[in-house]
Amino acid sequence: MAPLKVGIIGVGRIGRCHCASVASVPTKATVSMICDIYQPALDEVSAIFHVPKTTNDPIELINDPDVEAVVICSPTDQHAGQIMAAAKAGKMIFCEKPISLSLEIIDEVAAVVKEAGVMCFVAFQRRFDANFMRLKEAVTGGEVGDVHMMHIVSRDPSPPPVNYIKASGGLHNDMAVHDFDMARFLAGSEVAEVYCKGSCKVDPAIGEAGDIDTSLAMLTFENGVVATVDNSRKATYGYDQRVEVFGSKGMIQSNNKHANTCVVSNDESVSTCKAMAFFMDRYADAYRNEMVAFVDCAHEGKATPVGVEDGRAAYLIGKAAKQSMETGLPVKVADMS
Amino acid sequence: MAPLKVGIIGVGRIGRCHCASVASVPTKATVSMICDIYQPALDEVSAIFHVPKTTNDPIELINDPDVEAVVICSPTDQHAGQIMAAAKAGKMIFCEKPISLSLEIIDEVAAVVKEAGVMCFVAFQRRFDANFMRLKEAVTGGEVGDVHMMHIVSRDPSPPPVNYIKASGGLHNDMAVHDFDMARFLAGSEVAEVYCKGSCKVDPAIGEAGDIDTSLAMLTFENGVVATVDNSRKATYGYDQRVEVFGSKGMIQSNNKHANTCVVSNDESVSTCKAMAFFMDRYADAYRNEMVAFVDCAHEGKATPVGVEDGRAAYLIGKAAKQSMETGLPVKVADMS
Amino acid sequence: MAPLKVGIIGVGRIGRCHCASVASVPTKATVSMICDIYQPALDEVSAIFHVPKTTNDPIELINDPDVEAVVICSPTDQHAGQIMAAAKAGKMIFCEKPISLSLEIIDEVAAVVKEAGVMCFVAFQRRFDANFMRLKEAVTGGEVGDVHMMHIVSRDPSPPPVNYIKASGGLHNDMAVHDFDMARFLAGSEVAEVYCKGSCKVDPAIGEAGDIDTSLAMLTFENGVVATVDNSRKATYGYDQRVEVFGSKGMIQSNNKHANTCVVSNDESVSTCKAMAFFMDRYADAYRNEMVAFVDCAHEGKATPVGVEDGRAAYLIGKAAKQSMETGLPVKVADMS
Amino acid sequence: MAPLKVGIIGVGRIGRCHCASVASVPTKATVSMICDIYQPALDEVSAIFHVPKTTNDPIELINDPDVEAVVICSPTDQHAGQIMAAAKAGKMIFCEKPISLSLEIIDEVAAVVKEAGVMCFVAFQRRFDANFMRLKEAVTGGEVGDVHMMHIVSRDPSPPPVNYIKASGGLHNDMAVHDFDMARFLAGSEVAEVYCKGSCKVDPAIGEAGDIDTSLAMLTFENGVVATVDNSRKATYGYDQRVEVFGSKGMIQSNNKHANTCVVSNDESVSTCKAMAFFMDRYADAYRNEMVAFVDCAHEGKATPVGVEDGRAAYLIGKAAKQSMETGLPVKVADMS
Repeated sequence: MAPLKVGIIGVGRIGRCHCASVASVPTKATVSMICDIYQPALDEVSAIFHVPKTTNDPIELINDPDVEAVVICSPTDQHAGQIMAAAKAGKMIFCEKPISLSLEIIDEVAAVVKEAGVMCFVAFQRRFDANFMRLKEAVTGGEVGDVHMMHIVSRDPSPPPVNYIKASGGLHNDMAVHDFDMARFLAGSEVAEVYCKGSCKVDPAIGEAGDIDTSLAMLTFENGVVATVDNSRKATYGYDQRVEVFGSKGMIQSNNKHANTCVVSNDESVSTCKAMAFFMDRYADAYRNEMVAFVDCAHEGKATPVGVEDGRAAYLIGKAAKQSMETGLPVKVADMS
Repeated sequence: MAPLKVGIIGVGRIGRCHCASVASVPTKATVSMICDIYQPALDEVSAIFHVPKTTNDPIELINDPDVEAVVICSPTDQHAGQIMAAAKAGKMIFCEKPISLSLEIIDEVAAVVKEAGVMCFVAFQRRFDANFMRLKEAVTGGEVGDVHMMHIVSRDPSPPPVNYIKASGGLHNDMAVHDFDMARFLAGSEVAEVYCKGSCKVDPAIGEAGDIDTSLAMLTFENGVVATVDNSRKATYGYDQRVEVFGSKGMIQSNNKHANTCVVSNDESVSTCKAMAFFMDRYADAYRNEMVAFVDCAHEGKATPVGVEDGRAAYLIGKAAKQSMETGLPVKVADMS
Repeated sequence: MAPLKVGIIGVGRIGRCHCASVASVPTKATVSMICDIYQPALDEVSAIFHVPKTTNDPIELINDPDVEAVVICSPTDQHAGQIMAAAKAGKMIFCEKPISLSLEIIDEVAAVVKEAGVMCFVAFQRRFDANFMRLKEAVTGGEVGDVHMMHIVSRDPSPPPVNYIKASGGLHNDMAVHDFDMARFLAGSEVAEVYCKGSCKVDPAIGEAGDIDTSLAMLTFENGVVATVDNSRKATYGYDQRVEVFGSKGMIQSNNKHANTCVVSNDESVSTCKAMAFFMDRYADAYRNEMVAFVDCAHEGKATPVGVEDGRAAYLIGKAAKQSMETGLPVKVADMS
Repeated sequence: MAPLKVGIIGVGRIGRCHCASVASVPTKATVSMICDIYQPALDEVSAIFHVPKTTNDPIELINDPDVEAVVICSPTDQHAGQIMAAAKAGKMIFCEKPISLSLEIIDEVAAVVKEAGVMCFVAFQRRFDANFMRLKEAVTGGEVGDVHMMHIVSRDPSPPPVNYIKASGGLHNDMAVHDFDMARFLAGSEVAEVYCKGSCKVDPAIGEAGDIDTSLAMLTFENGVVATVDNSRKATYGYDQRVEVFGSKGMIQSNNKHANTCVVSNDESVSTCKAMAFFMDRYADAYRNEMVAFVDCAHEGKATPVGVEDGRAAYLIGKAAKQSMETGLPVKVADMS
C-alpha cells in the first residue's frame, strides 16, 4: 500500500512534532503538503522534511488532491471550521484538542463528521503514553479487579502566560480536559456527577484574568466508580502526571518520568532529579505513538480510538466542574447539554 | 523523679501493647495496677509484667492511690464513663478512641475533663508514627510552602468481622476518624465542609449490617486547603496508609511500610513484598511513641498534644461525611453540633 | 517450661540491649544475674530490669546455680576465657564476636566447647535481620536459581575512634568479618580464595594506627560462586548495608533502612532522608531476633544456627584478605590455618 | 553552514539506526551515500531516507566527493581497513567498536589516523546515555568527592547465538569492553591492574565455543580507585546496566530503564515491569546522542571525545582480564602491549 499522504495545517511547535512523527514512518505515511500563514516557518519546515507542496491557505490544503488526511494544528478557534471543511472534502482528520469552546459548535462538528462518514481523530495524546496504556491494559485485563476508586494528579511545572490563559477557555477546558478524558478512558464508564473546588493559589494574575490555577474535582461514574482529579498550574518539581487505580484485586499506579535514573546519596539526603519539566519531552513518545496510531487507522480504514464524542464528553465534564465550583454543589453531567 | 504509676483498664491486645510500652521505659513509668473482667488475662499479664495489683473493677483501679494515670483500653461503650470517673478522681487519663459514639456524651466528657483540670490524652496513634511526624514537621517547617491540596489514602488489608462492624459506629466513625484527625493535624486548620460518596463494594454483608466499606470524602478547610480521604476496608496488598501534601514549594509524600527492603527481579517482574498486613505491626513504633509521649506529658505536667477536643472534631467530620453521603450534598461541619 | 535463667556479663550498650531483649520475652527467659566491674552500671541495670543478683566477678556469674545460660558482652580480650569457663561449667553460651584475634585461641575455644558439648552461639546479628533472612530464604528456596555472583556493600557512617581501631584487630577482623560471615551464610559454600585491595582513604590517622579504612575483596567459593565485599569506614549518607545475589533465575537485592518512608519533591530534587546512621537503630530488630533465637535454641535444646566454627571461618577469610592486600596476590583460605 | 554529508557503510540494524539519527538533524547533516553488499537492504534504506547515492563498494563510498564523513557499520573484520582507507582519503570517521581484535592492527590504525590528522570517533555509545552522562557529571563536578570505589554491573538479557560468540573475540572483548571503557570514562585515570574470574554458567555451548558467559573483574586504577565489573550473558529480568560510584562525599548510582513507571500492588507483591530487554531500545537515545555528538564535532572541527586510543585502552584491559582469568593471578595492563 502506498504511504498515506498527510497535509498538516500549522507548523509551529506541535505541527513540527507531527511532521517528524510522520517522517519517522516513511513506509506508512509522507507529509505531502503543509500550511502556515507564517512564511519563514513554512519554508524552514518544508526544507527540513522535503515537503513538496506548501500553502498559506488551509482550505487549499484541505482540498488538494495530494492530501488524503488532514492534521489540524492551527489556533483553537480555527479547529471546528477546518474539521468541517475537511469532513466535507471527504478527508480523514486528526485534530488537536479542543474541538471548540462552544458546545453548540462541537455538536455541529459532530453532526458534520457523522454525515461525512470520515474518521476524525481527536488528539488526546496521553492515551498513547506507555504509562497510561499500561494502566488501561491492567484495568481492561482485570489485573486490579473491579475498579473502586481512581486518583488522577495532573500538575504543570509552571503556568502559561496570562494571555494564553485568557484565551484558553479556563483551567477545566484547557488543562483538566486531558484528565477528564483519562478518567473516562480508564473507568470504561461515563461520568454522572461532578463536585469541584477551584481557587487561585499560584498567581493572582490568573485570578484577575478570570481563571483558577488550582482545582480538585470529584467524579462519580455511572458504574459507581468514584475518582478525584487534582490540578495545579505549578508544581516546583516538574511535570507531575500520576494516576492510581484501586480495585477489588489490587492497585496500579503510574509514576512520573525523569530524565535519568540516577540516585545521589550524600550527607543531606538520597535524591533523584526532578520530574521532566516540559510536556513535549514528557510526552515525546506519546505524540509519536498517537500520530502512528492515526496513520495506522487511516491506512487500515479503521475507526478512530478517540473521536469527536470523546472531545465532547470531556468538555461536558469540564463544564460541570466549573458550574460545581461556582455553585458549591454537585452537578450532574447530563444537565450540561 | 519517681516513675509514674500507671493503671491499665483492659489487658486485651491493645492493653498488653501499652503494658509493654510502659515497661520499656522503666525509669519513667511502671504499671502499678491492671484491670480486666477476664481473670486468666489478668493473671497472665500481671505475671509477665510483674504488676503488683490487679482487679476486676475499673472503678477500684481508678480510685486506687497507687494509680496516678489511668490508661483506658476497655470496650468503646465504657470509655466515656471511665474518663469521667478518672477525671473526677483527679487522675491523668489516656483513652483509646473513640470517646463515644454520641456527641452529647462527648460534650459531657469534655466538660467534666475541663472542670477537673486533668490531662486527657486521646489515642490517635498515627500522630506518633515516624512517617506522619515527618510530614507534620515538613508542613510546619514550611518545606512545602503554603499547603494547597492533600490526599490521604487509608485502606485496611481486610474487613473486620461483621459483628465488630455492627458495633463500630460505622466506617466514618471507626476507621476514617483516624484520617480526619490526620487531615486536621497536617492542615493546621479546621474542616469547614465535607462532601462524601460511600458504598459497599467489598462485602455485601457489610451493607446488610448498615455500613459501607468504601468511602471517598473531600474536605474543604477554613483556610482554603482541600483534601481527599480515600478509605477501603480491603486492600489486597496490605495496610495502605499514604499521605500526600502538595504546596507552593513542593510536595511531601509518605509511603507504606514493608517487612523488608528486598527487591526480587526475575523473568516476570521486579517486585517487593506487600505492605505490612497487621496494624499493630505497622504501627508498633507509633504505639510505643504514643505511650512514651503520654508518660512524658504526665511526668512534666504538660498539656496533652491530642485531647478530647481533637476526638470531638474528628467525630464531627465523620458525622458530616455520613450526612453528605446520605443526602448527596456537601455538608458544613458547623451544622453538625 | 520455666523461663530460661540468663546471666549477662557486661552491661554496657550491647549488654543492656540484650537485657531488654530477654525482658521482652518474659515467658521464655529472665535475666537472673548480671556482672560488670562498673558498679553504677550494675546498680542501674539491675534496678531497671528487676535483676535479682549482681556481681563484679564474671566467674561467679558463670558458676552461679541461678544462671543456665551465659551471655558474654565483655571486652574482646575476655571472650575466649569466659566462653571456656562457661563451657566447662556446662552452661549454654551466647558470645559477642569476635571469639578472639588469635587463631590458636579460637581453636582452643572450639575444642573446649566441643568437649563440653554445650551450645555456643556466636553473635553475627545480621543473620537475624529481616532483609538478610529474606535473602537467605530466596537463595535457599531457589528463587534466584543457581547463584552466580554476589555483591556485599558494608559501609559505616563514620569511623570509630582511633583508639578503638588500634585494639580492633583491623578492618577485616572488626568490620568485614560480618560481611565474610554473610557471604558464607548466603553462598552455602566455603570461601576458597580471597583477593583484596585495601587502603587508607578516609582518615590518615587510621593509616598511622596501622589499619585501613577502605577495602574491596573478591571471594571465590568452593562451588564456583564469586563475590565482592566492599567496605568503607565512612559513608556520608548513613549506614550502608546492601547485598545483591545474582543467579540463573534472577536477582535479589536488599536495600538500606530509613527512619521514615517520606519523599520530598521540590525545585531541586526528589529526595528521601539518609539511611539510618547508628548500627543499634539499624539492627535493633536483628539484635532482638538474635537473642530470641538463642533463647529458643536453649529452651528446646537445639543446636545453635551460628557457632564457633562460623566465627573461625569468617576469621580465616579476614586473615586471607589481609595477606592478599599485603602481597598483592590471591590467597587460599586453606593456607591460613 | 551546509549540512555534513555522511556516507554510511553497512545498513543493517545499527546502520539504519545511524541513518535515522542523521535524518533527525536535517539542518546539521544528511545521508549522502550508503553502501551495503545486500542490494535489497540498500534499496529499501535509500528509499526510506531519500539517500541520493548507493554502492556495493565501501571504497567507492569512502572516496566519493559527496561523502565528508564515513560511518563504519560493517562487520568487525572490515573496521580497521575501512578506517585506514577513510583516514587516507582525509575523511572524518565514525566507527563501531571494536576497531580490531588484534593489538598490532589497532596500533597500525592509530598510526594511520594520527598521520592523516583526521577525527576518528569510536562508538562507545554508553558515554552518551543520559544516566552515564549524569554519573560523569557528578564525578567531574565533585558531587561524590574523591572517588574511592566503583561497581559496574552489565548483564545481557540473553546470550547471542553461539556463532556470533565464536567470532566475537570473547566476552571481555565483545561485551565487557563497554564496561572497561565506562570504568576509564568515570575514573578519570588509567587501569593499572586487573584480577578476573570467569566461567561458563549460562550455557555449556558457550564454553564449548571457547568462551565464558560470566565474569567478575576487579580493576585497580593508577590513582588508587578500585572497581568491579560484573558481566553475565543472561539476566532473566532484562538488560541490567547499573553503575555505582562511591566517594568521600557520597555516592551516585544509575539504575535500569523500564518501559513504563507503573507499579502493580496485589495480593502477591508490589511490582514493576522488567528492565528493557533489547539494547537498541535501552540505548535508543544514546545512539542518537552519539551520532549527533559526532556530527557536531565534525561540523565544528572539534576533537572527538572518544577515539582510537580509547578503543585501544579498553582492549588492553580486556586482554589483561583474560590473562588473569587464565593464570589466576593479577595482571598489569602495562604488560599487555
